[in-house]
Parts: sequence; structure tokens; C-alpha cells
Amino acid sequence: VPDPEREFVRRLAKLASRSRGSTLVAQGIGDDCAVLRLPRNHEALVTTDFSLEGVHFRREWHPADAVGHRCLTRGLSDIASMGGEPLAAFLSLAMPADLPQRWADEFLTGLLRLAKRHGVTLAGGDTAQSPDGVLADIMVLGSVPRGQAVLRSGARVGDDIYVTGLLGGAVAVLEQLRAEGSRPGAASLARKRSANRLSYEQRRHFYPEPRVEVGHFLREKKLASAMIDISDGLSVDLAHICEESGVGAWISEAAVPHPPGATLEQALHGGDEYEFIFTVPAGKSPRVPAVITGVPITYIGTVVKGKGIWLVDREMKSRRPLEARGWQHFGGE
Amino acid sequence: VPDPEREFVRRLAKLASRSRGSTLVAQGIGDDCAVLRLPRNHEALVTTDFSLEGVHFRREWHPADAVGHRCLTRGLSDIASMGGEPLAAFLSLAMPADLPQRWADEFLTGLLRLAKRHGVTLAGGDTAQSPDGVLADIMVLGSVPRGQAVLRSGARVGDDIYVTGLLGGAVAVLEQLRAEGSRPGAASLARKRSANRLSYEQRRHFYPEPRVEVGHFLREKKLASAMIDISDGLSVDLAHICEESGVGAWISEAAVPHPPGATLEQALHGGDEYEFIFTVPAGKSPRVPAVITGVPITYIGTVVKGKGIWLVDREMKSRRPLEARGWQHFGGE
Repeated sequence: VPDPEREFVRRLAKLASRSRGSTLVAQGIGDDCAVLRLPRNHEALVTTDFSLEGVHFRREWHPADAVGHRCLTRGLSDIASMGGEPLAAFLSLAMPADLPQRWADEFLTGLLRLAKRHGVTLAGGDTAQSPDGVLADIMVLGSVPRGQAVLRSGARVGDDIYVTGLLGGAVAVLEQLRAEGSRPGAASLARKRSANRLSYEQRRHFYPEPRVEVGHFLREKKLASAMIDISDGLSVDLAHICEESGVGAWISEAAVPHPPGATLEQALHGGDEYEFIFTVPAGKSPRVPAVITGVPITYIGTVVKGKGIWLVDREMKSRRPLEARGWQHFGGE
Repeated sequence: VPDPEREFVRRLAKLASRSRGSTLVAQGIGDDCAVLRLPRNHEALVTTDFSLEGVHFRREWHPADAVGHRCLTRGLSDIASMGGEPLAAFLSLAMPADLPQRWADEFLTGLLRLAKRHGVTLAGGDTAQSPDGVLADIMVLGSVPRGQAVLRSGARVGDDIYVTGLLGGAVAVLEQLRAEGSRPGAASLARKRSANRLSYEQRRHFYPEPRVEVGHFLREKKLASAMIDISDGLSVDLAHICEESGVGAWISEAAVPHPPGATLEQALHGGDEYEFIFTVPAGKSPRVPAVITGVPITYIGTVVKGKGIWLVDREMKSRRPLEARGWQHFGGE
């Protein structure tokens, strides 16, 4: 469908040009490729993430601008968790024929508002008609000084383990939406409120802020030995660090920070959170601030020899294995 | 669905490591981002393209390895049409729960075979369960010496217009598939034959070869003033060049090259072809070879003042406007 598609690309280019951040984009939307310059002596970081209706969001639960915001957050968070700077985003968006124009516009508004805040240019993408539901794929290109990307594989025995922010809020809201089902209350919850009037937990669910400044700080100060963002849940993503680094971990149950609206279980296994887990060599630990650019930083445990992750109870008397199990996506009931 | 997803990413990483081409990939699949080095004094080229079941391919018509091949061709062709070198590819792939394992494996085999031929590393991606049909989004990162990307906007009045290869073969095969409908003949056509035993037209449809070497040659010799790949059809894509360059064009009907199995109409409007249109300043035209790395190069017309594209008849007596109209995708009947 070349013509409506071309029309959409034009509108996209127009909207994108308003929020143009980076001077590194030599050629944006409107040619076969985008042409970009990386800062000198930097490496390129690339990440791609799907946002599929029915899997990652539901149109009856999530306002269009929140879907756009969350879509870009997934990509920005991946760049940030390597300690990089996001430069440009590319959006592939397939829409069903009967999607209201307004939905697409609000989706883009939410995405571009977040892009602007982080100086990221929407530099290209693709559109198509979707056979079923809204399908978005976001690609973010970032950069990091050569050889300085913070990988998952750098954790060493004796390192301290930290997390950013409070965990479990996003999944607590998801559980609530699921419990309310398709009753009108759920559908209108987010629509009725502007982002400012949402609770902490609701903001983490509908408009999660990627921790770009935190990642930048930890990389620049050379504090983090390994880092990952929590997309599938603390238990799953800490297991990624342990596996890639060939180590185990002890986590203190009492230390895992969660907001009043979330349980410990939700904090341990809740996904779509976009907070960070990072490890710091014990010698550098005193230099880790309690708050980085407004985000609280919490010590939760230690990297140990061997395999597996252990949860130590509040009295520090017993431990049990922490099973790596992420929360269900929106597809399941 | 973290576990089967992780399993798939592991298999992907294993398959990808076998076909690893570029030494520029510092960190491939298995972290939050891929980390890549660009050659010195080069700019990054980025392109993303959907391949959606029912829109860009049909499982009953296209063997899985051809779908994988075509998916990557879309991206490589965009890089090549800027005169760039493809470095790395990123695949986002959503599959329905009931997709046979074998289909996914053959899809990857077709994609990776082409990647290997062009020294391209599959460096990352995303997977998810699809609500309906196979959804692939390919992102290709390439590079080009700084300031030397061949844009759509560089055509000037008096430039000669060329195309690579023969046009219309791919759409002729599509028409045939459509005419045969869901009769067993159509379904088994491609499955039964190995790629080598396909006709020229069938190869352009099922396994189109992106013109990477041609794009490289034309950029390096500084011959092309503007270039685009034919994804929507000669009439549509030449209109893109004219629009971006602020010029018009005359095309000689007799000059448009098409294989015996395709009509002039199909050559003028057939999409999914991945041949190139390029313009060359008249003074450099004598230096354009008749064949570049095995691909025939044909002069078809001239860039002129004003708006619109005109088709001149065989006797050079009359002209008619060439309407920019691409061929229908697979969705319509």
C-alpha cells in the first residue's frame, strides 16, 4: 500500500524533525538508509525490541502515548545498561487497517516526547499494514567510548550487587489491570489520568523512565563491573549476569527495595521494570552514591563462587534458592 | 515466554557464530546490545524493513529459506543503494505458537546463507510469540566513507538514467502464483525445485540477489549522482529520485530491459525487484561499463527539467506520462 504508507512516513518525518536532537544524523527519514556519524573513538551500540499488541501491551489497558513511550524505553534502556549514549531510533510500525488515526498520532507523540528528553532523533523506520493488531519494533543506535561498554559478563566473586529504584511496582499494576479484567474501571484507569497524577507504581508501569543518566554515571566513573536492565524480572536478569560471568549470587530478602504497592514476590520476579542490576568490585563500593541523578541505589547482595542464586531470609539464618522465573506477559491470563 | 525464547536466541547465536564474517563486531548476540566498530572515517548507514506474512510473503507460496533470504535482501539492498558496505544484521522475529520448528530453522538457514556471502554478521535481534502469522523485521547496519553516501537527491538536469539487471521478472512470477491460487501446483512450485533449477524470473522472485558490488563500484568510481533500489517498482522509485532531486525524467519504452517472461508493464511497475536505478552526469556516462560484476547495466532515459516522468514510445514519436503506481502486495487479490 505505497500511498497511505508514504503519507505516514511524511507525517513521521515532520513530527520527527520537530524533536531532532542529535547533530550526528547527516541524513534522516527520506532516503534508503539513515546516515549517522558516531563520536570519535566510539563504538556503535545496537538493540532491537518488539512491542506487540496482546503480548507487550493491550489497547484496552494502555493509552496510545504510553505504548509509544514504553516502546522507546525498551530500546533506550538497553543502550543505557551498557553505559552508552542513545543517538537515534528507528521505528517499524505495522497497523491494522481500521486503527484510528488518533491512536497512531498519540503513539508517536508519546514516543517522540521521550526521544526529545534524551536528545534522540527518530531517524527512520518502516510501516506496513498489519494483518492483526499493532506491531512495533524499535531499534536504537547508541555509542560508547571504545572498549568501555559494561557487559553482563564482568561480575567477579566478591563484587557487591546493587539495584536502581524500587522494584515490583510495574507488575503490581499489571496484576491489578488483569484482576479488573475488561470492566470499564480498568480500561479508563490510565486514560483518565494524566501522567503527572499517576501513582509511583502506575508511572513505572505506564511511563517507565529509562535509567540513561545512571548508566552513564556508572560507566564514566568505572564503578560497574557488570550491568543489565530488568526487563524479565530481577530473578531472571540476575541469572543472566551470573551465567555470563560464571558466578553465583546471594541476595538479602530484606534488602530488595519495593514500593508500598508491591510485594516482595513482585519485586523479585516482576518484569517490564527497566531498573538496573549492577555489580561493583568491593573496593569501589564505598564510592557508589546512595542516589544517582534522583534515583535511589540499593545494595542487595554479593557475587559468590559456584552456580545459582540464593535468597537469604530477614534473620540471615536460612537461605533458599531463588528460582529464575519472570512474570507472565500480557498474553496469558 | 522467557524460556523457549532464550532457547531460540541460543540457537540463533550458535547458527550466527558459524557465519560470522566481520571482525568489527566486538560483542554479538548475548548482551543487552551488540557492540560494533565502524571503519575509520566512515559514517553509519541504518535501514529497517518488515517482512510480514500475508503482506510480503505467503507461507503456501514461499519456501521458508526464500522468506529468510528475501528478508535480508531488503536490508542489504538499502545499504547497497547508498553505495555502502553492509556490516551487521539484526533480526526481530515473532512466530505463531504452532509454527513448525523446521520452518524457523529453514528461514534462518536462508537468511544466514546470504549473510555469509556478503560477510555480514547476524549480531542481535529479538523474538516473541506472534498473535497471528510470522512477523520479521530486519535491521542492517552498514558503513560508507564520510560524506560519500549516494542519496536520492543528487540527480541533476541532463544526467543519464540507468538500471541494473532485467526488470519485471519477480512480479511476473507473483502474478503466476496468484493466478494458480491455492492449487497444489503453486504451493509446490518453489518447494520442489532447488534454487539452482529455478528460471531467471523465479530466482529474482524467490532469491533476489542484492546488488551490493554494483553499488560499491558506482560509489567508489564516483559515477552515480543519485541511486535507489527498486522495491516498489521502477515508476514509483524513479519518482522518489525525481521528487527528492526536484527534477523530471524521460524514459525510453524500448530501452527498459525485461526478461522474456515479463511484459513492459511488469517491468515498469513491478516491485520487490531489488535492481537499482541510478543517474550519472552526462560527462561521466562513457565510463559506465555495460556489465558490472556480472550484472548488465542499461541506459533507459534522461533527467529533465520540471516535474513528472514521461514514457517515450518505440518510434520516438509520442510520449505519455508514466504514472507512479507500484504492484499490489500479496495481501490483495
